[in-house]
Amino acid sequence: MTSGRKWWRWAASALLPLALACTRETGPEGAATAGASALGGGSSLAELMQKRGLNEADVVAALKTYTPSGKHDEYYLFASGGHGGNLIVIGVPSMRILKYIGVFTPEPWQGYGYGDQTMELLKQGSRDGKMLTWGDMHHPALSESAGEYDGQYLFVNDKANPRVAVVSLRDFATTQIVASELIESEHGSTFVTPDTDYVIETSQYPAPLGGRYADVTKFNDEYRGATIFWKFDRARGRIVPEESWAMELPPYMQDLADAGKLVSDGYVFINSINTERAYGGNLEGNPPLESGVSQNDMDYLHVINWKKAEQVVKAGRTKVIAGMRVIALETAVAEGLLHFVPEPKSPHGVDVTPDGKDIVVGGKLDTHATVFSFEKIKALIAANTFVGKDPYGVPILPFQEAIRGQCEIGLGPLHTQFDNEGFAYTSVFIESKVAKWSLKDLKLVDKLSTHYNIGHLVAAEGDTVSPDGRFLVAMNKWAIDRFAPVGPLLPQNFQLIDPVGPKMQMLYDAPIPLGEPHYAQMIKADKIKPVEIYKPAGMNALTHEKDPFAVEGGKERIERKPDGVHVYMTAVRSHFTPDIIRVKQGDTVHLHITNIEQAKDATHGFTVGSQNIHVSLEPGKHANVTFVADKPGVYPMYCTEFCSALHLEMAGYFLVEPK
Amino acid sequence: MTSGRKWWRWAASALLPLALACTRETGPEGAATAGASALGGGSSLAELMQKRGLNEADVVAALKTYTPSGKHDEYYLFASGGHGGNLIVIGVPSMRILKYIGVFTPEPWQGYGYGDQTMELLKQGSRDGKMLTWGDMHHPALSESAGEYDGQYLFVNDKANPRVAVVSLRDFATTQIVASELIESEHGSTFVTPDTDYVIETSQYPAPLGGRYADVTKFNDEYRGATIFWKFDRARGRIVPEESWAMELPPYMQDLADAGKLVSDGYVFINSINTERAYGGNLEGNPPLESGVSQNDMDYLHVINWKKAEQVVKAGRTKVIAGMRVIALETAVAEGLLHFVPEPKSPHGVDVTPDGKDIVVGGKLDTHATVFSFEKIKALIAANTFVGKDPYGVPILPFQEAIRGQCEIGLGPLHTQFDNEGFAYTSVFIESKVAKWSLKDLKLVDKLSTHYNIGHLVAAEGDTVSPDGRFLVAMNKWAIDRFAPVGPLLPQNFQLIDPVGPKMQMLYDAPIPLGEPHYAQMIKADKIKPVEIYKPAGMNALTHEKDPFAVEGGKERIERKPDGVHVYMTAVRSHFTPDIIRVKQGDTVHLHITNIEQAKDATHGFTVGSQNIHVSLEPGKHANVTFVADKPGVYPMYCTEFCSALHLEMAGYFLVEPK
Repeated sequence: MTSGRKWWRWAASALLPLALACTRETGPEGAATAGASALGGGSSLAELMQKRGLNEADVVAALKTYTPSGKHDEYYLFASGGHGGNLIVIGVPSMRILKYIGVFTPEPWQGYGYGDQTMELLKQGSRDGKMLTWGDMHHPALSESAGEYDGQYLFVNDKANPRVAVVSLRDFATTQIVASELIESEHGSTFVTPDTDYVIETSQYPAPLGGRYADVTKFNDEYRGATIFWKFDRARGRIVPEESWAMELPPYMQDLADAGKLVSDGYVFINSINTERAYGGNLEGNPPLESGVSQNDMDYLHVINWKKAEQVVKAGRTKVIAGMRVIALETAVAEGLLHFVPEPKSPHGVDVTPDGKDIVVGGKLDTHATVFSFEKIKALIAANTFVGKDPYGVPILPFQEAIRGQCEIGLGPLHTQFDNEGFAYTSVFIESKVAKWSLKDLKLVDKLSTHYNIGHLVAAEGDTVSPDGRFLVAMNKWAIDRFAPVGPLLPQNFQLIDPVGPKMQMLYDAPIPLGEPHYAQMIKADKIKPVEIYKPAGMNALTHEKDPFAVEGGKERIERKPDGVHVYMTAVRSHFTPDIIRVKQGDTVHLHITNIEQAKDATHGFTVGSQNIHVSLEPGKHANVTFVADKPGVYPMYCTEFCSALHLEMAGYFLVEPK
Repeated sequence: MTSGRKWWRWAASALLPLALACTRETGPEGAATAGASALGGGSSLAELMQKRGLNEADVVAALKTYTPSGKHDEYYLFASGGHGGNLIVIGVPSMRILKYIGVFTPEPWQGYGYGDQTMELLKQGSRDGKMLTWGDMHHPALSESAGEYDGQYLFVNDKANPRVAVVSLRDFATTQIVASELIESEHGSTFVTPDTDYVIETSQYPAPLGGRYADVTKFNDEYRGATIFWKFDRARGRIVPEESWAMELPPYMQDLADAGKLVSDGYVFINSINTERAYGGNLEGNPPLESGVSQNDMDYLHVINWKKAEQVVKAGRTKVIAGMRVIALETAVAEGLLHFVPEPKSPHGVDVTPDGKDIVVGGKLDTHATVFSFEKIKALIAANTFVGKDPYGVPILPFQEAIRGQCEIGLGPLHTQFDNEGFAYTSVFIESKVAKWSLKDLKLVDKLSTHYNIGHLVAAEGDTVSPDGRFLVAMNKWAIDRFAPVGPLLPQNFQLIDPVGPKMQMLYDAPIPLGEPHYAQMIKADKIKPVEIYKPAGMNALTHEKDPFAVEGGKERIERKPDGVHVYMTAVRSHFTPDIIRVKQGDTVHLHITNIEQAKDATHGFTVGSQNIHVSLEPGKHANVTFVADKPGVYPMYCTEFCSALHLEMAGYFLVEPK
């Protein structure tokens, strides 16, 4: 930052001529000429604006987002990578993508899925014994303490192959993937309870539970939904499958979810579509699914008392399906764990307000944000005030008595976020707009166009009990004309919005170059304090403990054992030791490599040519790599991460002698 | 852009109070107060600057880079993804990443490697019959016509598993991968001749040619380098392996390369390190490789007359190794195709000037950029003026007589780019600086710090016969403290520089969140005109022809054939037809899916749960997916790319009946 004095000199020289020119009414051209001498880079403000076609709002937006070299962003935005399967970390307000984190999809820069430890991690996420090499990630959830993001962990889901992954924010790396074969697809995940006791994963397209086969014509009787409560052990940083449990649900399409907080803590709210129980069959004379699904005026908001359900599980009133303890639907009904409230036309997003008092639901084919009152719902349940039951016996509460009201905001409201001044922000898909409205009186305050087809939106600390009221990001599904063309497959468009003041201001268009983010959470940057170096050297990045095969400098060696050739290697600028490895054709080779560097950013990469292996060795990290040397030959091995002036010389030979 | 009149009003209201405050010498605080009312977003310029800690240079940089919603970048920067294996497309000057293009690494968002056609493409790139799922991409090369980027194709290499890929800029998609088993690693690739007759790929770490085994102690006799001239057929957009050829080289580590242009057209220049022929062995009593490699004061710039070599190939004076016609080293010497010129200490980059007259070489352990004169080299060769021969008989030209001079620029010069005013820009690794110097008198003009450890650098149209003299990007290897921390593995840092004027100005720090780019090329955006829609619908994106399995709306069907169940499907908002597919356990399933949409950005994705398949269906695209339905059950299938208000309803069931 410049000194006050220097700043003053600049302001006087750069802006005064411009302002004076304007008062003389010479217009912009004159202003540009008058101001031409100033501003370091040889251009005046006015010249620059004219040259680059910037208007006054653009200048404000530029200065609100531009982040000079070495200054850090104020927030991290953690966005799902959609069917890219990996997590995206973005800095706000610069909107620069800081990192992609490998989660469901192998990624070689990180060595993710190209060495032993991460390959084993990905194998944990197998389904039906089949290793999966991608995922469809939708909703990241930051770990919370007392309803506040605590910056420790992040959870993400896979819609296509129902799974949940744990990402450690200690080193921005995936440490666990859990898969239940109870359900066959999901969408309402991940969402956490306010102290991260549970990570919630809810099915979307119903199927027979536990992977059974039943023809779709038996939909009503044989197909079911379910919501899984994955138990999270914060101390160990791991989901504990054996302490997790689930609840069977009717065969509707359960959609998004949110956990209650403060007054509504202990409850989970899940909305649903397709209470019609349509299942398609458009080549068999049935209407297409999207039409069958959209017949009813109301679907059902699921109100689940998870604290009470937890007691039912503890009491053993569950059945085991696919290794998971499941509360049967009839038990959930009998125990009063599950109630329905009608919600308007094709609901999508459900979002609990920061105070926990209200639940806001958007209906894709509706024009309102509907605000349900938790207090009213609770009272209706307590009084057994039901208007009926669904075909599976689930009691249905009366709609009008359950809501606080509705805000008319436009066509296709989807998701809602909150600020610190009592305003709610709802994405309006069909209109491609963000609507700002008052929670207090449910009145629309402002609308801003987005480009285009906004899905989710996210506010700073927007899912916590105390949102910051700062930046808002519209997560637009289509970009169309926003960016220089890159062929038929276009990036998504994240638009940064300043929500403060009477009119929201569009600040920045950020293309997402890989993956299709669905949702994101935005956390204050100072809440996250990642390690920069693995200490002590030899650490296994999955266990965060010293790897049993860790190698110390000076103790490098090659040992032939019954299970193959073990090579104990170190990496340090600018060599691997050993740099010549000789094996025989057919040998199983176990490389144990420790990067013994303890300097920040002193990362090495390691590969052996043509063997399809690669590891990233950040400072202090240890990696194991196992492969079979099946073809004789001479294979260069080398450091893949430019580490020093003699990086290209950080190489050696892996020699496979013929049998 | 705002109208002149509106602009004037803004300038007067926003800047006048600020300027007046300054003239009254109230200092910045007073200025901020005085200007508080203006600038749309509720902030004055001065307030914003103070609040965000921006100085005058920051404001200029912000306005030179900020690109408002809907305005397009002026240049595309195509950067290699390093060991991420995929290509990165960046807009300049905003430095926003517009797209990652799948090349060597499967990527599910694009469906790249998760459906039949792209899986087949990746299999083309197998080595030793082994499918590879990553690559180490270093140097992208845009196709050229008469030495100018023509915006049609882009070539990239894989250092770890020697391969070259062709990317079509018609749709920003990979269309071919070729692999030669002649060599075992490479680095000096890809570089193209001025009309893209050839794509050059040169080995780095020597090995017995053709994949033979020989112990490394036989290095001098059995190990060799080679440079491959891949023949490119522009009309077909394909490399033609059977028309390609190679030249055997001594077992030095050949490094970067560049093709001659204009006066030097017909030549290729490749530098080298390790004329010492060290091969490591640090656990066997030898010095580490990086030390053995760095003993000599001079290594050899390889000067290859490829037009003459092409005649030698046509005359049949080649031997065939690993299916490739190779000019033996002794033939290259005998025919005068290869000459050496000494080049100073650990050379790295070699770059031909836009006029083709000079060749600039940087030495990693040197302090100069050395400028070789093509005219002098040619004359020395013509006069047989040699100072000796290397151990393989290659004639060595005298150093002093071959150079035009040297420019002292700092410690560790690597790579050089050019502008339109006779200046050269050299990256200085050890000093972390960019040096600007005059080609005419070889005088240093300016130096600018980068952050940190600059590797390559790239200028607008910087490798052509007519560079634009606009933006310069420093491709820094370490970021250290530049960005909000993201764990031990840090992004790379691309720094955008304005090179114009007496002092270069640092404009922007752009993190690279995935992969480690080594080199990039920057092309004027209007040179590339990608298609937005595949027309007619049913197109195979690899062949750019109608796929034989393309499906028309109304002709969807399911057919059982001897090779399995064929499902002819269409996708259109918001359903697949058919939306129910029934097969029997063990069936091979062939899905043929055409996205029959012809609207821009109307992309659908398709998956069947738990089968590890995924395709991206851009408008008009056809994809085939083959898999075995080996486990009975009910698998939801759905659209993975948010396409419409009823996107979640774009789903169906894949039913596998038990045997």
